Amino acid sequence: MKYAILFGGASFEHEISIVSAIALKKVLKNVETFIFLDSEGEFYAIPPTSMKSTHFSDRGFKKDEKLTLSKGGFLKRGLFKSSMLEGFDVILNLIHGAQGEDGTIASLLDFYEIPYIGPRKEASVISFNKRFTKLYADGIGIKSVEYELLKIDSKREIAFDFPLIVKPLRLGSSIGVSVVKQKSELDFALDVAFEFDDEVLIEPFIEGIEEYNVAGCRVGSEWYIGKIEAPKKDGYLDFEQKYMDFSRTQSVLEAQIDNRVQEELIDSFKKVYANLFEGALVRCDFFVKDGEILLNEINPIPGSLANYLFDDFQGALDSLGTSLPKNRSIKPDYAYIGLVKSAKGPQTGNGR
Amino acid sequence: MKYAILFGGASFEHEISIVSAIALKKVLKNVETFIFLDSEGEFYAIPPTSMKSTHFSDRGFKKDEKLTLSKGGFLKRGLFKSSMLEGFDVILNLIHGAQGEDGTIASLLDFYEIPYIGPRKEASVISFNKRFTKLYADGIGIKSVEYELLKIDSKREIAFDFPLIVKPLRLGSSIGVSVVKQKSELDFALDVAFEFDDEVLIEPFIEGIEEYNVAGCRVGSEWYIGKIEAPKKDGYLDFEQKYMDFSRTQSVLEAQIDNRVQEELIDSFKKVYANLFEGALVRCDFFVKDGEILLNEINPIPGSLANYLFDDFQGALDSLGTSLPKNRSIKPDYAYIGLVKSAKGPQTGNGR
Repeated sequence: MKYAILFGGASFEHEISIVSAIALKKVLKNVETFIFLDSEGEFYAIPPTSMKSTHFSDRGFKKDEKLTLSKGGFLKRGLFKSSMLEGFDVILNLIHGAQGEDGTIASLLDFYEIPYIGPRKEASVISFNKRFTKLYADGIGIKSVEYELLKIDSKREIAFDFPLIVKPLRLGSSIGVSVVKQKSELDFALDVAFEFDDEVLIEPFIEGIEEYNVAGCRVGSEWYIGKIEAPKKDGYLDFEQKYMDFSRTQSVLEAQIDNRVQEELIDSFKKVYANLFEGALVRCDFFVKDGEILLNEINPIPGSLANYLFDDFQGALDSLGTSLPKNRSIKPDYAYIGLVKSAKGPQTGNGR
Repeated sequence: MKYAILFGGASFEHEISIVSAIALKKVLKNVETFIFLDSEGEFYAIPPTSMKSTHFSDRGFKKDEKLTLSKGGFLKRGLFKSSMLEGFDVILNLIHGAQGEDGTIASLLDFYEIPYIGPRKEASVISFNKRFTKLYADGIGIKSVEYELLKIDSKREIAFDFPLIVKPLRLGSSIGVSVVKQKSELDFALDVAFEFDDEVLIEPFIEGIEEYNVAGCRVGSEWYIGKIEAPKKDGYLDFEQKYMDFSRTQSVLEAQIDNRVQEELIDSFKKVYANLFEGALVRCDFFVKDGEILLNEINPIPGSLANYLFDDFQGALDSLGTSLPKNRSIKPDYAYIGLVKSAKGPQTGNGR
């Protein structure tokens, strides 16, 4: 299984994606193809030797070969002759945040019939919008933290007591997220969050909560579940801490939790995953409070695909890559057009 | 405001879309551009004089000019020179069913920065999947009919009493939908529904329910709401009946309902619409049972855009077209990459 890593994107997590791609390059064998989506919507084929963060911050990529989406792959459009980009079987969608995780990339790759590992449209929309995640969790019988929604033009009235946590409705990676300890801090936190989204989610900040991350995927009836991690945190992981997190390549120590909680976490993960997240390797972040499990968020494209949680990351990925969801092929037979033409009544069109 | 009608698509509603586009051509002034998406994913510029159903059923479109998506529009790729397709300001997304209503077309048009009237990604996914519609309705305090879900590989056990209604989870236009009056009919109905989707929604079939359709859109703070229609039906509108429905161009008589119900229907419509469906003209189908309103389904691209419900359809559309949702422009500044390079610790990558 040969992969092309697709990264970048017009997203607040653009840089995170670059760091994540560089980390994954180190972890995976047989990745020689790197497709960068710049913030203007242009695709570039990045030579493996150029996969350094400075190549992007210095705009060196602008001189690399441009690609355009075309049925079955990415086209290198030459002056006299066009040819398809080669060197991979499956795309790894590593565009974090907008475009990558909101359904855009899934739609593009589905439309152009390019096989990929990553969340499909529905999975993207449900996990990207934190409110939809909660509605989904509710629908499958998984608890989540209670919440209020504020729109950018609505009155800033909140029923919860402080401390609160304020989050843009649609971003990942802690961007724009604040813990608000008292009323005097609220306006600033809301201003920050509204910089990133027109809607903001507000939750009570629960002190002393335990957090556990579970990553994995399902291939047919087989589950690949990584080590459960209890992320270190200092109050709340801010963007800079999480950013460093995206470049991780070293394996972690498994969280020390009792068997019952561990089983329940894995059970909850499986409920969230199936079948919505088929084709993706995802990470779910759970809270445990007084023995009760709450879904915090779903990362359908975790930083560097959470490689550090798996004993055999390459094996899990290769297995996933050989068993991707298929789209139904739909071919019209124009039977109904014939029917309407022969049966049309006074209210129907006459086809002219 | 000049429109291009985008229609077709690799969907079971492909033919419906053709009929719908032909109907809309008759209703709207200043539409001279027609973009057909065939079932293989190729776009064609259809000359207005060729907008007849036979042009598609006879595959005459294959000789029309091919188009490819490109930043800002559709490109006509000539042998020596390429040029952008002209003659329109805004796309009307009239691809019913898969692709058009599932978020694919929204993603493509957003990605290539082509303005369009139609549901955005989130609106598409929430309305296309009937279960997500129910979860969404629940989240905004609108009731819907209770349901069970069956997966293609799950046991065919249903708790509801007969009669039931069996629906593929993700299709519109009544395709694959059956009313099941007794147990002996159930297996066949499920087989039919599973032809179209791997998941099937089952609801109790409620006798004597009233059905009302409300269509409209919001532009800024102004609402355009069409006449409320009580669709005629004989038991349940099947695909052929609904198909005829897509070609409607003649205005309808307003349903005779009391003021309270009418107000509540419009209130419910507004709750469903805002803000999720901004940029689209949608139709919501409601049930009224014992004075209580239930959301049945959301059609984010109703047949021929439900033109027949509006006194001034062109006016509503033109207003919508001048006030489309904008995507936030996100430009990376590569500040964090600099930060990581200077601050990286032992666990982070070295950018090589």
